[in-house]
Amino acid sequence: MKLAKIIGTVVATRKDESLVGYKLMIIRRIDGKGEFIDSEEVAVDYVGAGIGEIVLIGQGSAVRVDKTKREAAIDMAIIGIVDTMDI
Amino acid sequence: MKLAKIIGTVVATRKDESLVGYKLMIIRRIDGKGEFIDSEEVAVDYVGAGIGEIVLIGQGSAVRVDKTKREAAIDMAIIGIVDTMDI
Amino acid sequence: MKLAKIIGTVVATRKDESLVGYKLMIIRRIDGKGEFIDSEEVAVDYVGAGIGEIVLIGQGSAVRVDKTKREAAIDMAIIGIVDTMDI
Amino acid sequence: MKLAKIIGTVVATRKDESLVGYKLMIIRRIDGKGEFIDSEEVAVDYVGAGIGEIVLIGQGSAVRVDKTKREAAIDMAIIGIVDTMDI
Amino acid sequence: MKLAKIIGTVVATRKDESLVGYKLMIIRRIDGKGEFIDSEEVAVDYVGAGIGEIVLIGQGSAVRVDKTKREAAIDMAIIGIVDTMDI
Repeated sequence: MKLAKIIGTVVATRKDESLVGYKLMIIRRIDGKGEFIDSEEVAVDYVGAGIGEIVLIGQGSAVRVDKTKREAAIDMAIIGIVDTMDI
Repeated sequence: MKLAKIIGTVVATRKDESLVGYKLMIIRRIDGKGEFIDSEEVAVDYVGAGIGEIVLIGQGSAVRVDKTKREAAIDMAIIGIVDTMDI
Repeated sequence: MKLAKIIGTVVATRKDESLVGYKLMIIRRIDGKGEFIDSEEVAVDYVGAGIGEIVLIGQGSAVRVDKTKREAAIDMAIIGIVDTMDI
Repeated sequence: MKLAKIIGTVVATRKDESLVGYKLMIIRRIDGKGEFIDSEEVAVDYVGAGIGEIVLIGQGSAVRVDKTKREAAIDMAIIGIVDTMDI
Repeated sequence: MKLAKIIGTVVATRKDESLVGYKLMIIRRIDGKGEFIDSEEVAVDYVGAGIGEIVLIGQGSAVRVDKTKREAAIDMAIIGIVDTMDI
């Protein structure tokens, strides 16, 4: 998983049917010091996370293992909210 | 998903049979400010998007979850049209 | 998909059995202006492409969707020959 | 696989249900000389590794081949502890 | 596939059970001129390759298509030995 911060939301009215009902968040990856790295990406929220929170990002088929998501065109999801990082 | 802008089209008469009938768009990734990043790539259009539009790009097996696409050699697709981004 | 130019061939006598009979081409990714980017990679030719041609490159499980390729250790293939790009 | 060093731990109380019970480690990739490269990432520990150890990192569906992990949203795992590297 | 050179070996006594019996080689990617690019990675040897040889590297689920490898946590493998490259 990657570490990221939620920095915004996206509205997309016209989209693949399998994405209807999912919340799309704009995230940006952070390193272990909390500094932004890479550019903005869009992840589906699985855990009820809010803007400003540090989260765990899952990618690829890992985010479609759940029976309810097998047929959703999701390749990136917020799969956890980070309470603390000890480095 | 990635954020991208549609900047052109590709014509490929000779191609894998599984790609016949799909529209191939040239896209280029953008960051949260709308600036271009990375280089041009080619995505199959699933949502009827047009040149100049800001779109959501799905990658990998996520873009073949639909029964009609299981046997198509597609690894990148336009899966949504962005109305607004709030950052 | 990525855009690439075919720049050579590879001979590998000793290889995974599942690759026997496939033609291995050296490709290098190009951007929308036709300039080389990234370094050389090796792709299996699915469409009868030749050296110097601009092609579409598929990656990952997308290039093994066909029944005849399910058990081939192929992670990158030439899946189309580009006639024209309009950007 | 990648080579990495375990440099910390992450606590995430609110997370995808499929991740409950797994230990989340902060790792950072190293090169053949043991120098850090890239930024911090989070991997699930499969082998009982500890902080400071050099480990092998698996990614993608490879880390869900085991029957007990097929439905876990894991895309990166510690799959071995490196005793020695001979370069 | 990527082009790479085998530059060493890794010993990992404690590892995921599915990896027992496989030989782990340290490889480093090369470009078309044979110059090293990127950093060291670890690949499972499928073809009996030796140190110093130029090889083809497969990644992702492509290296688990064989029935005997479906349940092995392998995401990168040496799938061919390069005899000649014509560029």
